Amino acid sequence: MTITNKDKLIIFDTTLRDGEQSPGVTLTVNEKIEIAKQLSRLGVDVLEAGFPVASQGDFDAVQRIANEVGPLMVGREAIGKPITIAGLARAVPADIQRCYDAIANAPHKRIHTFLATSDIHLEHKLKITRDECVKRAVAAVSFAKTLVTDVEFSPEDAGRSDQDFLCTVLSAVIEAGATTLNIPDTVGYNMPEEYGAMIKYLIANTKGSDKVIWSAHCHNDLGLATANTLSGICNGIRQVEVTINGIGERAGNTAMEEVVMAVHTHPDFFPVYHTINTSLFFRISQLVSSLSGMVVQPNKAIVGANAFLHESGIHQDGVLKNKQTYEIISPETVGANTINLVLGKHSGRAAFRSRLQELGFGELTEEEFQVAFNSFKTLADSKKRVTEQDLLALLSDQVSSSAGEKTTYTVKSLQVVSGTSFATATVQLQNTQTGDVLIDAAIGKSGPIEAVFLAIQRLVGKKIHLLKFDITAVGQGVDALGQVSVKIAEGSANGSSSDSEDSVTETEEDKDAGLNKATYHGHGADSDIIQAATKAYLNAINRLVANESKRILGERKVDV
Amino acid sequence: MTITNKDKLIIFDTTLRDGEQSPGVTLTVNEKIEIAKQLSRLGVDVLEAGFPVASQGDFDAVQRIANEVGPLMVGREAIGKPITIAGLARAVPADIQRCYDAIANAPHKRIHTFLATSDIHLEHKLKITRDECVKRAVAAVSFAKTLVTDVEFSPEDAGRSDQDFLCTVLSAVIEAGATTLNIPDTVGYNMPEEYGAMIKYLIANTKGSDKVIWSAHCHNDLGLATANTLSGICNGIRQVEVTINGIGERAGNTAMEEVVMAVHTHPDFFPVYHTINTSLFFRISQLVSSLSGMVVQPNKAIVGANAFLHESGIHQDGVLKNKQTYEIISPETVGANTINLVLGKHSGRAAFRSRLQELGFGELTEEEFQVAFNSFKTLADSKKRVTEQDLLALLSDQVSSSAGEKTTYTVKSLQVVSGTSFATATVQLQNTQTGDVLIDAAIGKSGPIEAVFLAIQRLVGKKIHLLKFDITAVGQGVDALGQVSVKIAEGSANGSSSDSEDSVTETEEDKDAGLNKATYHGHGADSDIIQAATKAYLNAINRLVANESKRILGERKVDV
Repeated sequence: MTITNKDKLIIFDTTLRDGEQSPGVTLTVNEKIEIAKQLSRLGVDVLEAGFPVASQGDFDAVQRIANEVGPLMVGREAIGKPITIAGLARAVPADIQRCYDAIANAPHKRIHTFLATSDIHLEHKLKITRDECVKRAVAAVSFAKTLVTDVEFSPEDAGRSDQDFLCTVLSAVIEAGATTLNIPDTVGYNMPEEYGAMIKYLIANTKGSDKVIWSAHCHNDLGLATANTLSGICNGIRQVEVTINGIGERAGNTAMEEVVMAVHTHPDFFPVYHTINTSLFFRISQLVSSLSGMVVQPNKAIVGANAFLHESGIHQDGVLKNKQTYEIISPETVGANTINLVLGKHSGRAAFRSRLQELGFGELTEEEFQVAFNSFKTLADSKKRVTEQDLLALLSDQVSSSAGEKTTYTVKSLQVVSGTSFATATVQLQNTQTGDVLIDAAIGKSGPIEAVFLAIQRLVGKKIHLLKFDITAVGQGVDALGQVSVKIAEGSANGSSSDSEDSVTETEEDKDAGLNKATYHGHGADSDIIQAATKAYLNAINRLVANESKRILGERKVDV
Repeated sequence: MTITNKDKLIIFDTTLRDGEQSPGVTLTVNEKIEIAKQLSRLGVDVLEAGFPVASQGDFDAVQRIANEVGPLMVGREAIGKPITIAGLARAVPADIQRCYDAIANAPHKRIHTFLATSDIHLEHKLKITRDECVKRAVAAVSFAKTLVTDVEFSPEDAGRSDQDFLCTVLSAVIEAGATTLNIPDTVGYNMPEEYGAMIKYLIANTKGSDKVIWSAHCHNDLGLATANTLSGICNGIRQVEVTINGIGERAGNTAMEEVVMAVHTHPDFFPVYHTINTSLFFRISQLVSSLSGMVVQPNKAIVGANAFLHESGIHQDGVLKNKQTYEIISPETVGANTINLVLGKHSGRAAFRSRLQELGFGELTEEEFQVAFNSFKTLADSKKRVTEQDLLALLSDQVSSSAGEKTTYTVKSLQVVSGTSFATATVQLQNTQTGDVLIDAAIGKSGPIEAVFLAIQRLVGKKIHLLKFDITAVGQGVDALGQVSVKIAEGSANGSSSDSEDSVTETEEDKDAGLNKATYHGHGADSDIIQAATKAYLNAINRLVANESKRILGERKVDV
């Protein structure tokens, strides 16, 4: 089968909205902007930046992305226009207005509004009739249309909605001006064949279906998000809602790199083409993994560490004449070849700057550049081979700890003694606000990292609950950078935990008590794992201190 | 669509053969036996235990699995028969005989033989004609049939073979007595629709196709292994070749848990049923991850840490009356509910023993039980909440370091001093063979773990190349167990590395020099990350010392 007239496949990235709903993931505004810049450079068509009505923090993030990333053309020369910034809004005027206010400055902007259409949602959650549902959907789209030309509508819980009623709603919103219709498989239950058949039915039975772009939004609960999305494409889907590394709630969303590479490697099978710069996939995968703390397993398709490693001898067999068919994707195509490139220890500033540019960090201020260069030099002193992967980890670290939040505490010195029984840490912190230098020590029964955390707790005079603690190694040597990511919340002064004095890990009671508390994410990278943990913990504490007076409460996450 | 007459879906697990071909994974015989026992208990029908001709080590592992796991009935009462032990063999008499010798003692046994059928392989690799190919395939199956009744044949590179020639080969091997025909998508290139169509065509055009079981073997390079396998099932496949966590070369094999749960949740869609005890999935996933060192990403379908975590509020919404449809898989169904269960610090031996039984470690000797109980007590002293997940990590550790290999070195004491500049480690080892106690110290520029490794190198008097170093945290607190896995090889005395004196990580030159060297895997778990690293390193060194005189050379991995 050869397709002659191909449509462009629109890549709608929701790493910053649905991806950020992954349990335990909280990105700062700076981290979101860095990811958004890289997504723009990758060639993403539409970027869902957040859910502006959810909180002031979400609003600010979407607004800054619209202002700072919305107009960028770097890396998009072939596409010829900047990225479209989308914001999510429930089908109510206040949400839609708030969404518009956040994205207003982007040259290309989209309002993405949604309303449940299944009877179970209408009756039990929204408590409205089907007629009222159609009216609300039309009202929402009509209002959005007065603000922007580009309006997307999602019927929430489409999979369990009556298909003919769904066609009625969809016909009505097209009439009202919707330009994209997105069909979610919210619970990840569909088989590829079923999802494709549903798309086909909806397109065939919705009035005006040829005037809009149909979009797929799948979840990976059975490991089928990619297959479902591809089945959608074969049945009329022209926009795919995806995330980098497939991150998202539960088992995640559809992985962008898998869908794009399936289309890329099967030009004769799919009726679409894409305009993604696939050679950036490996790097952006690493960046998102670092910043989100969501590990990519070695056997992950396309971007896993093993994806291009061949253990058996057969693949190197030079007699195979048709290499291209055998090696379905070359490492270069997704940028897997450069990730382990060694950076010369004696690299000068100019060489380093040009490497940063290649990595998409060309827009650092002079001060930021100097910080990055110093980190590189320090690492190069302790490590034989500094790779591009190490550099990405350092840069992620810098993005996370940089500007935006004021840094209250910095480590002046750290000393750890540990052995076969227990560990002692002595930590000296400087309070940059007051100039005070504080020093104290603590014992850790579970090793040196616990000792350091307990000493820091004493110094900052707070009871901190550690909600999450993850370690991963970047690269392969003993001098591999260790990356630690932590999530913390402040405990009550009269800690309900029976053992609160010398505890850093939450108990069940803490968990209950902490349900409505703000949580803070921190991460750190260092070739010394204890230093990495110290950086991560202090990074999170600095955020806690900075935000102490502006806690954000209330529900802010939605399911689409 | 309701299917009334269902066939049983045969689950063929190849975690120990194709899964073990994951880059960096090397399982010891003890580790393989433990995984095999758990797979038998899970309800796997056929277990591919290895490739006996590849090396003496592979032969021994397959033979011990055939002898020790082959007859087990624990957990298989509903299935009514023990697991079938399969071995892989090229289509040559020596391979087939060697395979038979390894599996001979299993009550149910299978020889799995393979031969390439694509022209490109025939011409360039095997240098034989199509006629010769048919002859060899028939000869191999006929010979295998004289040894066992259960013979599986795989046409390697089926995807690129001429389909009609493939039918000729397959018809001939059925005639010769093959009972299962396995169709691999070796390079993971097929779209689900294409793979399903190929299966349909082969079944329709192969003589005697109704007399055999058709099997699917897919790879995950585009993230479609599960979808391809399921498409196969819809088109006549009745055996699936899968691995736990989808481990395997490059992006891995089809994940057993995904295929089984797709079938499980769609009883009206698939014409098959399964007899897997799905409630063991989470535990076996953890065990395989621990022993193989292959991390499972949090957003992995079915067995990822987040797979059953809901971040948004909607899912807890009590108004949804139809919980079963909404929550497509309950955590209990795959055993995700018990993994974080806390084990009482004051648990006695009886309670502990019954917990071990639940975890499938009921057959420990009294001595092994005592070691496990002591580890548990030690951990419970340093950690508030010991979970089932921690216990699995401890047991994995014990499996890895236990019997089979003699332990030459044990740590008597360890002292580490580290801080913001460099680290010093003092290590005291006992050589259990000679009774000598050795002590030395070293400096680590990259932190305390490097210091410990360098001190150990001095004590054992060897130059060790570290080929792989991975850290992961089990669980969520700062007292989470850290798991470290390492891979090492011995360096040449006159190390080619310019910096060999104080180096533990391989250089490019080391890599070249080490290509034909035996490598040793080690792992360790401890709530103190430095202790975990020390255990892992010494575990690997003990294996190196034990195997010093019996290095196994030569290619041992194949692509099917």
